[in-house]
Amino acid sequence: MKIVLADSAGFCFGVKRATQLAFKAAEETCRICSLGPIIHSPQVVEKLENKGVRVVEKLEDIEEGTVIIRSHGITAGELEEIKARNLIPVDATCPFVKKAQDYATMLCSEGYSVVLVGEKDHPEVKGIISYTRDGEVTVVADSREAQHLPGKGKIGIVAQTTQSFENLRQVTTVCLDKSKEVRVFNTICDATSVRQEEARKIAREVDLMLIVGGFNSANTTRLAQICRELQARTYHVETASEIDPSWFCSVETVGITAGASTPRWIIDEVVERVAEF
Amino acid sequence: MKIVLADSAGFCFGVKRATQLAFKAAEETCRICSLGPIIHSPQVVEKLENKGVRVVEKLEDIEEGTVIIRSHGITAGELEEIKARNLIPVDATCPFVKKAQDYATMLCSEGYSVVLVGEKDHPEVKGIISYTRDGEVTVVADSREAQHLPGKGKIGIVAQTTQSFENLRQVTTVCLDKSKEVRVFNTICDATSVRQEEARKIAREVDLMLIVGGFNSANTTRLAQICRELQARTYHVETASEIDPSWFCSVETVGITAGASTPRWIIDEVVERVAEF
Repeated sequence: MKIVLADSAGFCFGVKRATQLAFKAAEETCRICSLGPIIHSPQVVEKLENKGVRVVEKLEDIEEGTVIIRSHGITAGELEEIKARNLIPVDATCPFVKKAQDYATMLCSEGYSVVLVGEKDHPEVKGIISYTRDGEVTVVADSREAQHLPGKGKIGIVAQTTQSFENLRQVTTVCLDKSKEVRVFNTICDATSVRQEEARKIAREVDLMLIVGGFNSANTTRLAQICRELQARTYHVETASEIDPSWFCSVETVGITAGASTPRWIIDEVVERVAEF
Repeated sequence: MKIVLADSAGFCFGVKRATQLAFKAAEETCRICSLGPIIHSPQVVEKLENKGVRVVEKLEDIEEGTVIIRSHGITAGELEEIKARNLIPVDATCPFVKKAQDYATMLCSEGYSVVLVGEKDHPEVKGIISYTRDGEVTVVADSREAQHLPGKGKIGIVAQTTQSFENLRQVTTVCLDKSKEVRVFNTICDATSVRQEEARKIAREVDLMLIVGGFNSANTTRLAQICRELQARTYHVETASEIDPSWFCSVETVGITAGASTPRWIIDEVVERVAEF
């Protein structure tokens, strides 16, 4: 059986960095926790727990020691509380998210009405807004929502890092009609679109697609959805142990990809398992 | 016969201002000329000539006295020459054109690669470029040309004031794909689009359209073309004297509009003439 493994499968830059920082911090100190699961991979979270990294949901649940800030960042208020309570932060905020925070803050300080393209309840979006302090920030999901914005003197635009470029483009188009000056920082990280594009390409060429990653990972679930939309026979698994040999009856080629929070060792185990059939 | 006169017919803000400045200067001094015809209306130019305003094509043709700078501006080099030769400038550059000059200059000084949406041989465009000194400015006519631009650190966009908004929007879309930061100043004056939109609306409702203005006026000629594209019976006249009574056989409603360089008195004469039939 032929296996086509996506080049883009697995950890993106920010997740890789966050995971490395977390394992390194776990080696160096024993009173350590992460504010929310560090990534959407139960297997990685379990490995970190075995090294002493406890997952807490809220800051008030932490009494002392080190707090790992996960890749989509926290709010300015939470960061202040960490400092005020003498907790030690390990900042694993993705550098691309940090850039979006910095650009939004700069635009507000220069008097722009900021339009943030993203999901208003997402922690990354809440974080970006919080750093602008009393800045004027409006979150819009898409161009339809942007159409309700009032006219403005000057509009600054930033995007949640996982947004699609097409959505940013459409919102920009609408904003051009609302203001005489529009300043856009394209803060989208293309890891997501590159992974999705490769999944589409492979799904068209194979008999069966395997998507590997946490069931709680939005980007992994989206990869499976994209392949199914192309009518590809698609299975989403978290680990190799879930693979059912009966899937491979009269299958000649298998495509494999994985979400941004899926570690290499899980992908390798899946590839090895499939190779056995 | 019913006459529908466009609200937007005639002088735009910049042309009205330039014409007023020219007539005022002609009252105050006798050694006076304009660098190029002040507007594309032979009748207005003739009136100014009768007041002593000579039209010259080149700076070297002027020996002394006052020089009127027309509404689409001149280059930085020409302005320096005027000052160096102790000529007295009357700056009738349209304030909207001046804004485009200022924004392009500011963007260059802040390190943007500037994209100027416009016609590269137009005096307004040449003027805008000249004020940026050694700035990096590329003129693109449309999105097709913009596609050939190389990727850039940050792109600033300004437009020739008479460009269409749709063209600016399309170029912006292409530039978003070329750079992580795109800063757009919409320097388009909407007088042109408002006049064209109203001409379209009227042309659909009447039996005959009269377009009034200089045959050498690009925006007037464009108005006639727009009406003809809508299959409206359209005549382009410079003055009331050109109107032929035979045009109005079995005509019940006549639409009238005029280009940005057509003075009020000529429009009034046309309306009075048509009202006679």
